Amino acid sequence: MQQLIQMFLTAFGTADTIQHDAVTLQLQGNKIAFTTDAYVVKPLFFPGGDIGSLAINGTVNDLAMAGARPLYLSVSFILEEGLSIETLWQVLQSMRQAADIAQVKIVTGDTKVVDKGKGDGIFINTTGVGIIEHDRAIAPQSVKPGDLILLNGDIARHGIAIMAVREGLEFETTITSDSAPLADLVLALLAADIEIHCLRDLTRGGLASVLNEIATAAGVGIEIDEGLIPVREDVQGACEILGFDPLYVANEGRLVAFIPQAYSDRALEIMRSHDHQAAIIGKVVEQQHPPVTLNSKIGSKRILDLLSGEQLPRIC
Amino acid sequence: MQQLIQMFLTAFGTADTIQHDAVTLQLQGNKIAFTTDAYVVKPLFFPGGDIGSLAINGTVNDLAMAGARPLYLSVSFILEEGLSIETLWQVLQSMRQAADIAQVKIVTGDTKVVDKGKGDGIFINTTGVGIIEHDRAIAPQSVKPGDLILLNGDIARHGIAIMAVREGLEFETTITSDSAPLADLVLALLAADIEIHCLRDLTRGGLASVLNEIATAAGVGIEIDEGLIPVREDVQGACEILGFDPLYVANEGRLVAFIPQAYSDRALEIMRSHDHQAAIIGKVVEQQHPPVTLNSKIGSKRILDLLSGEQLPRIC
Repeated sequence: MQQLIQMFLTAFGTADTIQHDAVTLQLQGNKIAFTTDAYVVKPLFFPGGDIGSLAINGTVNDLAMAGARPLYLSVSFILEEGLSIETLWQVLQSMRQAADIAQVKIVTGDTKVVDKGKGDGIFINTTGVGIIEHDRAIAPQSVKPGDLILLNGDIARHGIAIMAVREGLEFETTITSDSAPLADLVLALLAADIEIHCLRDLTRGGLASVLNEIATAAGVGIEIDEGLIPVREDVQGACEILGFDPLYVANEGRLVAFIPQAYSDRALEIMRSHDHQAAIIGKVVEQQHPPVTLNSKIGSKRILDLLSGEQLPRIC
Repeated sequence: MQQLIQMFLTAFGTADTIQHDAVTLQLQGNKIAFTTDAYVVKPLFFPGGDIGSLAINGTVNDLAMAGARPLYLSVSFILEEGLSIETLWQVLQSMRQAADIAQVKIVTGDTKVVDKGKGDGIFINTTGVGIIEHDRAIAPQSVKPGDLILLNGDIARHGIAIMAVREGLEFETTITSDSAPLADLVLALLAADIEIHCLRDLTRGGLASVLNEIATAAGVGIEIDEGLIPVREDVQGACEILGFDPLYVANEGRLVAFIPQAYSDRALEIMRSHDHQAAIIGKVVEQQHPPVTLNSKIGSKRILDLLSGEQLPRIC
């Protein structure tokens, strides 16, 4: 994936602008955020969501991570011949509901149909436009040693929910995806004048990958404490059975915020009013190699590397 | 396709805004155009273009049809496992070149990979943002009896170019796709203060389908003259061999403009400076049923219906 990204950067020559989830653009005096994502999640329906709600939340969240208020979405479908109208209708209804909850408008769309065996039910692209109503530079480059790292809830549920369905696993409790829109949380932090240095949602690659990317881009080190990271007991158990590390499992409604210490208590309070499991999980330190370390529950120090390859393909 | 569109309109409840190629949005005092398209053309490469340049031109053209100046594009890929890096690189290079020609910037992107047999090489979504720098209402609702209908060049080449490759047909001459960006032509018409009532590019369904859609949306009738519609001789011949009617074959660099008579000569002159085959092909009349009629070369009158179903799937 990193190689592919490098290839696109080389071809399109916009390395400075396409590193983030959403790009920030000047449009005649307005600052807008613009982002796109393809969704190919398999299966189409899973506990806590489906490809439709995921396609809305994922793009809304990318806009929110740029500190933007999400406004408009485009939706385009690639449908495989033979898809049932009932399935499509269920996905459309779910998208409509997710858009209403996230307060974005679906304003334009497109549909293509491909022959049976040349697609996989439904693929969706959503592209979003949001408006940035502040002057803060919310980006890895703003992250500084001393910043605290806030996480807005428990991790690894999305990936495990998908995997459980794929593998036909049943646990005592149903593990539901954490798929959710994050714009209201971000807008609440902004409205409270919290100084935010960086925001990032924890999707493919999970918490560990995001921390590595940001530390590298910012030229800093990161230290986190395993004991402070909320992981539900059943999710932890499922991870052990499946051989996954929750720190690398995908989420769809989770973010980390890099906040100067002076603002961190108020920021945590706001986060906890959205999800009581929100926590301060670590801090930014001076540059170190490797960049991210974890203090484990048993007191040892562990290196948190960037995974090579995807732990779970088609998770979003 | 019409049924699918109706289904989306019902689900998303934005019938008033998602009828056109691009939607027009107010953004803090600016008027922007926003449009999305998925590209699943098969084969990926064809005479005169490929899926990459098509994905740039198609979305640029949708913005142009709203009278907008195309500014920014997002690009997202769904790649099938096993796709060769050389193929991808060739497509990326082609996109870069097409974007440079159309003077748009690719500013953000995404890539997903699906398992072999669950995609078809490369699917691309491009979504575009443009700025509307005028107050004219360029839309079917502005079309009036008396308007003349201008076509910017010969038709049916894109569809036939694709079909020839798919069927392994060889003609004496190579028929190349007409795939091209149309924004410079539209901006030239606007800069010359031509009053434009409606613009529409002739993609899936060809000229006949577009005329039907516009006549129905505008509540008017349309009469065109077969003898005035430029079709290259080799394209006409290929259509006859393949059993297609060029009036229904897809184009990717062709548009019709609905222009009041007083402006039509100047508009034609500008169009001819881009392509000498541009022509006035007919006029808008009072509402009639069926809405579109064709005066054939042999002097008879023919009804131009909306085709049910797609004449050529995966043409764009």
